[in-house]
Amino acid sequence: MKDEIAILAEDREHGASELARRSLALLANRAQTSPATSCGGLITELNLIANRLRQTRPSMAPVQNLVGRWQSLLVCLPQEEVASLRPKIVALAQQLQDQSQQAVTAIARQTAALVGRSATVMTHSLSSTVVASFKILKEQGVNAVVTESRPLQEGYRLARQLSAWGIATTLITDAQMGLFVGKAKAIVVGADTLLNDGSVINKAGTLLLALAARRQNIPFYVASETFKRVSASPAQAHLEEKGPEELALEPQPGITLRNIYFDITPPDLISAYITEQGVYRQASELPFFTI
Amino acid sequence: MKDEIAILAEDREHGASELARRSLALLANRAQTSPATSCGGLITELNLIANRLRQTRPSMAPVQNLVGRWQSLLVCLPQEEVASLRPKIVALAQQLQDQSQQAVTAIARQTAALVGRSATVMTHSLSSTVVASFKILKEQGVNAVVTESRPLQEGYRLARQLSAWGIATTLITDAQMGLFVGKAKAIVVGADTLLNDGSVINKAGTLLLALAARRQNIPFYVASETFKRVSASPAQAHLEEKGPEELALEPQPGITLRNIYFDITPPDLISAYITEQGVYRQASELPFFTI
Repeated sequence: MKDEIAILAEDREHGASELARRSLALLANRAQTSPATSCGGLITELNLIANRLRQTRPSMAPVQNLVGRWQSLLVCLPQEEVASLRPKIVALAQQLQDQSQQAVTAIARQTAALVGRSATVMTHSLSSTVVASFKILKEQGVNAVVTESRPLQEGYRLARQLSAWGIATTLITDAQMGLFVGKAKAIVVGADTLLNDGSVINKAGTLLLALAARRQNIPFYVASETFKRVSASPAQAHLEEKGPEELALEPQPGITLRNIYFDITPPDLISAYITEQGVYRQASELPFFTI
Repeated sequence: MKDEIAILAEDREHGASELARRSLALLANRAQTSPATSCGGLITELNLIANRLRQTRPSMAPVQNLVGRWQSLLVCLPQEEVASLRPKIVALAQQLQDQSQQAVTAIARQTAALVGRSATVMTHSLSSTVVASFKILKEQGVNAVVTESRPLQEGYRLARQLSAWGIATTLITDAQMGLFVGKAKAIVVGADTLLNDGSVINKAGTLLLALAARRQNIPFYVASETFKRVSASPAQAHLEEKGPEELALEPQPGITLRNIYFDITPPDLISAYITEQGVYRQASELPFFTI
């Protein structure tokens, strides 16, 4: 169990929503295998694990929100026999995992409807919600403009996926954003976290793309599940800094290499939020995911 | 002679002003060694070489303007004996080379005065005028924030120079511009070309830095000699595209790699132009270099 939590704590491959689903799967598995002999004992043990999972990824809103929702529903389950409680807990976790997957599909459909046919769509970084949108958009004959997204080149990974689907894809350096934004019908980015005022935490460079899009009057859409939203303000937000070795630049005395991985895009630069609950043009209308 | 012109045509190491000075040195050398026996013959030959030099680097305004100025002054020289004409032509080339160097020094002094002491100065790409400014600024205890400037990492070369001078230098990816611009007291960039309306052609990403600076009310200065100015409008400007291999990303079928090397920053985003003729807050006041 400790090993499995450690794996989720160190995972750099998957997005926050995927890790929330994996956390729920881990909890469901423990509900089935726990040696607990009473309903109270089982629920206490699972809550402890759930809290540990949330502590290991404090900056991942979906882990907080989906696991938190699961915990709040756990106490409402009828506590009769531990043997009959186990499958109900598993079903609850499965239901939230499904809900999370359906949210992505709902967002992808709405994004495709907003963007329309034969459009050029530009994005930055690699968002699973944006990937799901492109999976529908490829049937609509879109082209893609993808930024490299230094340092880890998530954009190059996305470009390979899109081109494998037959989407004509242009890959540019992050610095060329201002040159290409005007060729797009719309910009669609994902979000790591939505803040209380509607600001968006996403891979560094997202703010620059939003500024360039506003300058040229290109719609800038954020495709994000509402369970990525937290009650923190931009001033309270912690922007993770990662190791300078990711920059692949030779260190040199006197040079400080910085690798802040995320930046914050303020709501006035966002044309609309595409969520599983609907499309919101105003940050003030954007709902919280209620636990 | 053809070889020397070819070297200047293919030079990727030096900025436009440096290449203009090298062109003048080459012309001065030819003025001394040409087998021409008459003043008219010598001037005709030199004009042909000057035209060829200008044709090889059509997008480099300093080559056009400084070599053009030299040509226009050439015809005013007293044409008596070819032996006495030669040193006058050499002196004319030397005078323009000196004038070009003095322009850089004048700009660097004004930049240092504008920026003041103990400031954090942010820049993008590698400009010899900005380097000259930092040479003065290092005595004023400044810090530097330097962007990587993909694809060729000119910013990394600059950071090494600045740190070797003892300037505390922070190096960031281009995508982090929005995160660091607010830490700077001023942004100072060079220019490849100034357009008729005061727009600036510089390394791709300059526009994004200007947008981020405006967003956070940080002064955005362009340090540039007036002989980088041309009469072309932004619509007429040609932005050089370079080979995709510079991106160091593995090519993939279906992915088009683009490497447009320059972008255009419009005058409304520029707080001031720092030139050898003075500091201009309005693009409309910015003088042309008169040939």
